[in-house]
Amino acid sequence: MSAVNEARLREVESFLHEQIPLTRAMAVRVASWDEQTLILEAPLEPNHNHLGTAFGGSLSALTTLAGYSLLWLLLGEAKAHVVVRESTIRYRHPVRGTLRAVCGRPAEEEVEKFRAIFAQTGKARLSLVCTVEDEGRVCVEFEGSFVALR
Amino acid sequence: MSAVNEARLREVESFLHEQIPLTRAMAVRVASWDEQTLILEAPLEPNHNHLGTAFGGSLSALTTLAGYSLLWLLLGEAKAHVVVRESTIRYRHPVRGTLRAVCGRPAEEEVEKFRAIFAQTGKARLSLVCTVEDEGRVCVEFEGSFVALR
Repeated sequence: MSAVNEARLREVESFLHEQIPLTRAMAVRVASWDEQTLILEAPLEPNHNHLGTAFGGSLSALTTLAGYSLLWLLLGEAKAHVVVRESTIRYRHPVRGTLRAVCGRPAEEEVEKFRAIFAQTGKARLSLVCTVEDEGRVCVEFEGSFVALR
Repeated sequence: MSAVNEARLREVESFLHEQIPLTRAMAVRVASWDEQTLILEAPLEPNHNHLGTAFGGSLSALTTLAGYSLLWLLLGEAKAHVVVRESTIRYRHPVRGTLRAVCGRPAEEEVEKFRAIFAQTGKARLSLVCTVEDEGRVCVEFEGSFVALR
């Protein structure tokens, strides 16, 4: 990872920790971003449920945060408020270790359309898909509709 | 609220705080249950987002917890693990005050079917709907599919 990229990740992480206190309680970390895939992590300990596996609320929060963060990274210097409008999450298998939300950059055509509409109207919507994998399989599938507002 | 009911609510709340550490960070309170409607609350302060309104992750966690708690109350003394399989949440308006998740008891026919299948097979599924209201309007709609396992 380049130093610029690393600095940008720490900036997003600091923003989350300062602006959304629950991210500190969850110990959320912005782990990596290679322009295609963003990874957010959180340790199991503060995020477990009554069965000792990852709490659904933490998984939902972490995938939502991955969506916010990906939009901020895609928008770069553009000043934008990002909100989530709707999301669906499927818990297929329990997550037994570190919570690791992987959010993929949408197809370039989608990203370009999103950026163009945002630049033109100050408001644009983007659908994002995140997964949480553990022990080599997809445990959680998340789909969210996010809106950026100037 | 009867003393028995009040004691049961404190029991559910203690269970959440002991078993799911994030509920302590969120300061979740089991506010009321009249056999028809369960209300869980959390103050805005530890649950706000970067815009000063309720964080989507907190709203999703609180409504999920309301679903768990309603299933525990419906199952009463029956020993059960409760998990969430899938949920959809719509954020219609920002929540600017206390987060207040209202979860309704499903139609009695559904509850009876759920209890009978659980008693017979040790596994049953129930769909639950929760809303979060603020300033007199529905701000968040949540639908979740929960499973109880013996």
